[in-house]
Order: sequence, then structure tokens, then C-alpha cells
Amino acid sequence: MKPTLYGEVADRVLSLIESGTFQAGDKLPSIRTLSGRFAVSVNTVKEAYGLLETQRFLEARPQSGYYVRRGVPPLPKPAGEEGQRPTLDPREVGMCRIYGEMTRDGRDRSGASLAIALPDPALLPAAKLNSAFQTAWKTLGRGMMDYAFSPGLPLLREQIAQEALQAGMALSPDEIIITSGTSEAFTLALMTLCRPGDTLAVEAPTYFNFLSLIRELGIKVLEIPAAPDEGVNLEVLAWALDTHQVKAFVTIANFNNPLGYRMTDDRKKTLVELCRSKSVPLIEDDIYGDLPFAGPRPRTCQSFDTEGNVLLISGFSKTLASGYRIGWSVPGRWFDRIDKLKSLTSVATATPTQWAVGRFLETGGYQRHLRGMRQRLADQVGAMTEAIARCFPEGTRVSRPAGGFVLWVELPGTADTTVLYESALTEGIVFSPGEIFSASGKFRNSLRLSAGVWNEGTARAVARLGRLAGGPG
Amino acid sequence: MKPTLYGEVADRVLSLIESGTFQAGDKLPSIRTLSGRFAVSVNTVKEAYGLLETQRFLEARPQSGYYVRRGVPPLPKPAGEEGQRPTLDPREVGMCRIYGEMTRDGRDRSGASLAIALPDPALLPAAKLNSAFQTAWKTLGRGMMDYAFSPGLPLLREQIAQEALQAGMALSPDEIIITSGTSEAFTLALMTLCRPGDTLAVEAPTYFNFLSLIRELGIKVLEIPAAPDEGVNLEVLAWALDTHQVKAFVTIANFNNPLGYRMTDDRKKTLVELCRSKSVPLIEDDIYGDLPFAGPRPRTCQSFDTEGNVLLISGFSKTLASGYRIGWSVPGRWFDRIDKLKSLTSVATATPTQWAVGRFLETGGYQRHLRGMRQRLADQVGAMTEAIARCFPEGTRVSRPAGGFVLWVELPGTADTTVLYESALTEGIVFSPGEIFSASGKFRNSLRLSAGVWNEGTARAVARLGRLAGGPG
Repeated sequence: MKPTLYGEVADRVLSLIESGTFQAGDKLPSIRTLSGRFAVSVNTVKEAYGLLETQRFLEARPQSGYYVRRGVPPLPKPAGEEGQRPTLDPREVGMCRIYGEMTRDGRDRSGASLAIALPDPALLPAAKLNSAFQTAWKTLGRGMMDYAFSPGLPLLREQIAQEALQAGMALSPDEIIITSGTSEAFTLALMTLCRPGDTLAVEAPTYFNFLSLIRELGIKVLEIPAAPDEGVNLEVLAWALDTHQVKAFVTIANFNNPLGYRMTDDRKKTLVELCRSKSVPLIEDDIYGDLPFAGPRPRTCQSFDTEGNVLLISGFSKTLASGYRIGWSVPGRWFDRIDKLKSLTSVATATPTQWAVGRFLETGGYQRHLRGMRQRLADQVGAMTEAIARCFPEGTRVSRPAGGFVLWVELPGTADTTVLYESALTEGIVFSPGEIFSASGKFRNSLRLSAGVWNEGTARAVARLGRLAGGPG
Repeated sequence: MKPTLYGEVADRVLSLIESGTFQAGDKLPSIRTLSGRFAVSVNTVKEAYGLLETQRFLEARPQSGYYVRRGVPPLPKPAGEEGQRPTLDPREVGMCRIYGEMTRDGRDRSGASLAIALPDPALLPAAKLNSAFQTAWKTLGRGMMDYAFSPGLPLLREQIAQEALQAGMALSPDEIIITSGTSEAFTLALMTLCRPGDTLAVEAPTYFNFLSLIRELGIKVLEIPAAPDEGVNLEVLAWALDTHQVKAFVTIANFNNPLGYRMTDDRKKTLVELCRSKSVPLIEDDIYGDLPFAGPRPRTCQSFDTEGNVLLISGFSKTLASGYRIGWSVPGRWFDRIDKLKSLTSVATATPTQWAVGRFLETGGYQRHLRGMRQRLADQVGAMTEAIARCFPEGTRVSRPAGGFVLWVELPGTADTTVLYESALTEGIVFSPGEIFSASGKFRNSLRLSAGVWNEGTARAVARLGRLAGGPG
């Protein structure tokens, strides 16, 4: 794509910032001055400054002008055409030293529920799943021991196709592949779309397990900034896709992990069209999509896709039973390859849990279950938000998700949540420090808390964490 | 490694065969003649001819001399030192056009049981597994819905460690990682040891799903010949490991799939020591090891390993329930990495099936179950062997496995089992043609039959297959 004139001006301004000519807090030349200096129209400069403002490099101060923002994470600068501009390669995803420790602690400690995005088991339909299991046993007998080969149990795929209507997706069961959780669906997507050394674009921040897996597979990461209100910055994404060889873009568009946003339908449409026009596959993780606090279940990006360019992954780990390992994929035009890879890498997902979930969905109880669960999660997220406002230092900012159950907390000033993590750990409190949501060490002033469990214990842990962070506690 | 003198002579003789100077059936120069021609001792030539005989390039005919064998699959010629000799790169694993079709057919047809190596469900302890499930439900309740994080349920790992004593392995539960079937364990091993473009050495023939997965991952294959009586040719393997950059060697040493052999303990020891001395990891698939027809359960290669250089994979798909997807890995010195990869790629294996198998093993019924199953499988393999002898053309050769339940059938003359496959398919009979057990199109005169199911239907299918192959049927 030929760059626009205002895009070129924006790039030149960025170079001046990167070279140190203008530094954080500096005021930039006025629009009129720059128009003269660069020999372009006033409108072109306005558009350029507007773009850089959207990209959060600049901020406009009323009656004053444009300033270089403080504390903006440096963006990878795109490679120029014909190598005219310096290239800043997407960074290798760095190892997060905390991750291993965190999950190890997360396993055994009750104080770890702040760290792991799982709902309170009390919110899950245990008795009904058990009875679905029993029904399956009675019907199937020995059949319960056989393979339910990829793409998976027809009953389960039919039920998922029916539920998918809620998300605006008109799917045939034949478009669905059952996987061992959403993680396996993501793994298969990466194995299909990327090779070691390739570059994948992700939202920044994004789910840390995704980053760790991407790194393990030797894939490079290009981080596209996302904002808690509206999601990924589509202008930056467009720019990145034009200037980098990107093999796919990964989005969690509904009740994003960790920021909590729900992209509007218009922005989803734009995102789908952008990826299509650049021939870049869109991997969409919709695992939180079933959990809006109010209003209708949001649509997926996939529901706006007509070309098979969206590879949707989802599952029941947040709404039914994480331990069953039932996820699914709608791989679009990569169906055959994902189906084959699934067959080769694990043959099939376990038969008994496929049957149990299939039978449970068949009873029609899933939507009813979700109604109750959504209300409970809304209450829990509300209660945790209040507790954070009360117990954390002044200036702390909290995301306002409209669904799901994670909260993104930005601490004021020069707070370092990696340090906070260490001190909290000694008291048996574990959370997800902001750093692990980035491939390049960003977000060290932030942290993610899960409101999946809200009880006296977690309330106490949040209060204590607030105090450790310098708040009233 | 500096090549030995007799190795160099053997290489020169091989070049003469490859260049067409000596062709299949041709008599080679006498030992004395060659000794003069190459200016080496008579003993050196003797050793060279002996090596080539072991490698199955030559055959010795009493009172006559050495001849180039007919029908010997061409071996990849090793690269020379400093490029003095021509290099024949390990071939990219070729796509097997039949595979997809075969498994698709295998799914739906009863006539497909000859193709898929699964035991008759009637041989499996369905009622006991069901009751183990119920016990687990009663004990655990909601816990059945939680993650059983990698490395997996402690109860199950303890039980596996106890059973492993039968195979000569003194394991701690902490050395074991539970996987979603042996396939996932193999996938994790490959992801750990190889990158795209790397070379893996395998037995030829070997399990076709392994070859397909290796190919999907962009890994190259070096095929080391194996014989139905004693297994992989250790001399060729040593030579290959010296002359190629090999990332690992894969063996199915106990009741090999497809050849049926059980390597002796001495050869296992030699293999383990060979891999250790060359710093090449040994991946051992022991999935058939629990199924000897008589005598004690054979030891694994892993049981001779003292360095953590053997990465063992196994599972319960052949002995309890394929659909449960319970496999396991003893990854030796790659434990941490496999554990991490398992966590990232699928988080955990399904909890209910881990509990069910764990509880079943805990009752102590596994060894009793195996005793009955071994006898039944021995009978079935015997019956199918007789049927093949009766119904297939004269000159057909059948493997004589001492365990497991697959038979390797070599047809006489110029038979082509890929063609036979097509004609059998039209009659609803599916088997595994020899070609898919090779990365380079070998074994087209052979086929694998599973004797996991033996009843009127499979007996009829074997008879019909014999007739299609040109036998009395």
C-alpha cells in the first residue's frame, strides 16, 4: 500500500521523537509552522497529528497545542519502503520469569484465585453435568471408551452450532472442530498459520499464556496498543500490517483478557475487513463472549466474516468446567488443515467429556445457566471494583468491563507490580502482574485481578494488596 | 568421527552399486580381487562386505560369493566428510495420499477394523472403568470439574509409577507427565527436540501417524532399516548418527508397530548406549509393551537409561480405553520443557478420565485385566496368521509378533498394496498399505493388518483380501 501523505508526515514526526529531538512532555511545532516546514497543507498536518494522537504518541492540550505524551510505550517503528527508514524489528517474545512461579503457586494456594481467571466452582452446574454424564453412560456403555475422532462428536458440534446463533454465527456443525480446551485450539491455529521466525500481531496487553506459547514456538510478536474503552487501535494495526510481514492478528474482542473491553460491532466489522483486505488471517478468541453482564450476547468478529478469514477459538472452561477440556474451533478456510493437525497431534478429544457437555447442552440448560452466572459475575466484579477503589492508592485506575470477570488495575506514579508481586507472594497472595501481558516488558504499573471468586478470603486479599501497593488497604 | 578403513571400502562399494556399475543380482568382485584393487587387506574387504550384508545391501551365497540384493530399499547415503563424497539428503517426508482417505473410511466402517490398531471393545474392562468413574464422582463432586494441571493427577502418576516396575522402570511419580494420549506425548517430544528443517531418524517401516506428524511439523526423516526378527539395524543407525545431524531417534522397541518385533534386552542396552554416546535423544514409544503373549512383560529401553537421554511415551489406548485419551511421558532431562509445553498447549489433560484411570489402577485390577487380554490377543493373532497362510498367495510372508496385535504381511513378486488398497476399498475392506509406513514410498509390497478384532466379519474380510491379492481366498 502506498502511504498517505499525512501518514508520511506522521512518520517524520515520529522519527523526530525517536531521535530525541522532541521528548516526552515537549510541545510540538504548531500545525501552521509544520505545514510550512514540510511544505504540506495545514489539513495534512492536522490529520498527521490526529493520527499520532489516536496512536497515543501525542496528546492535544486545549488552547495550547500538541505535546509528546509521557509514559507511552515505544511502538515498534515500521520498516520503510525500499529501506529508506530505519527498521525496528518486532521483538522476540521475552521470557517472563514470573510465569512459571505464578502458575506453580497458583496451583496449590487458595490465595491464588486472584491470579487465575476461573469462576468460582459454586457458579457451575455440577449436578447437571454429572447427570449428563450418567445419561451418556447409560446410552453409550462401551461406546464411551471409543475414539470420538476429530472433528469431534456430532451431537456436541450440533449443539455448539445451535448456541452459536446467540453470537450471530450461522454455523454448520461441519465447520466446527472440537479441541482439548481453547488452548489446544490456539496451539493448532499457530501451528497452522506460523512457522518459527514468523511474526504474529497481538493486542497489547494480551493473555500471557498466548505470549508464552508464541515464544515457545519461536514466533515473533508485534504488539498493537489497545485501550480499555474500545480495544485495539485499528489505525496502528493497519499501519503495522502494511509495513510488516504479519502472519496473523490475534484478538479477544469480547470482554477482552485483560482489559475487559467489548469491541463495538462497527469496529469488529472494520477489523474483519481490514484483515481481509490485507490478506492477514484473524484469530479470534471468544472464550468470554458468553458472559455479558447485561444486554444481548455480543456478536463475534467471525459473524461478520464472509471469506473464511477468521479463525475462531472458544470453549467451555469459563462457563461449565475447565477440567473437562472441551474447546472448539471454527477454522474457516483452514478447516482441513486444523482437522488433520488435531488428528495427528492428539487423535481426538476425550469421549466422556465430549458426551457430557453435548448431553448437557442438549437439555437446553446452558442459556438458563448463563443467565444466573452473568448476574453473579456482574455482582462480583462490582464488589471487587468497589474494594479496589477503597483499598488501593489514590490515582489507581480500574477497567470497567461489561462482561467476563477480570479487572485491569493501573497503579499511579512509578509503581512496579513486578516488585509488588514478590511482596504479595510472601503473604500468599498471587495476582497477574502487568509485565506478563507484554512481550516486551510493558505494563509494569498494572496488574490483572480475577473476580471469578469473591468471598471473605479474596476480599481480604484485595484489601491487603491495596495496602502493599501503598493504599489505605 | 573418522571413518574406519572398512567403512570407507563399504562406501566405495556402495557408490559402485548406486552408480549402476553393479546392479541387483550381480555378483561382486571376490574378496581377494577387491583387496588388490583397493590396496587394502583381505580382512578389511571381508569386514566391508560383512557390514554391507548386515545392512542388507549384499547377500552372501555359500560357495559362490557376495551378490547385490534384489529389492533392497535404497538407503540414504551419508554425507561425506568435507564434502568428498556425494550427499544424499534425508528426504522430506512425503505426503501419503491414502492416509486421509483411510482414516475417513476407518471412522465409519466396521470393515475398517483391519486398518486401525485398536482392540475389540469386548476385551476392555468397561464395567470396571465405569465403576471407577462413579467412585471418582462420589469422592470428588465439583472437584471433577477443576483442572488437574500438568504434570497431572498425583493419584494417576503414582499408579503409573507402580505399574512401571513391571517394565523394569524405577520411576518417581514426579518423573511422569500425563498427556492426552500417546499422540500428544509424541507431539510434545517433537516440539521439544526438533525445529522445522531438522532431521529425525526413525525405524523403517514405522507408524504412519508418526510420519504424518513429522511431515506436518516440517521435520525431515532419515529411515533406518528394521527387520521383523530383531528390530532396527544398529550398525546402520550408528553410521547414520555419525554422518548426519540427527536430532533424535524414534523406536517402538516392544511389539513394534508395524513389524511386531521385540528387541532383546541386549540390543536395547546397545541402542541406549549408542544414542547416549552420540548425544542423540532416544524417543521410545512403549504403547504395546503391556501386551506380551507369554512370559514376563518386556523391559523398556528407558529402564537401561541412566542419563535421562530416553524420552519415553506410552498410554492406555491399547489396553483400557482409547477414547479416554490418557497417555503419559517420562521425558528424562526434558521434563521441565515438556511440562511447560503441555501447560501452554492444552493446560491439562481432562480431569474425569484421569480420575477414572487412576481409580481403576488403584483397585489393582490392571494386571489381572492384562492377563486375560494377552491370552485373547495371542489367540486372535494366531487365528489371523493361519487365515493369511490359507487365503493369501503362495510366497506371502507374515511377521511372527510375540505381543501386541498387528501383523506385517509381505506379498510375493511385484504385488502393489497401494493398488490392492483401492480395490479392497470398493468392497468396504480397509487395511494399512505398506507405503504409508515409509517417508519415501517403500514397502509397496507389504501391508499391515490389525488382529485387534477377530470375528466372522474380519475373517471374511481377510479371506476376501487374500483373494484380491491373488490367493485362493
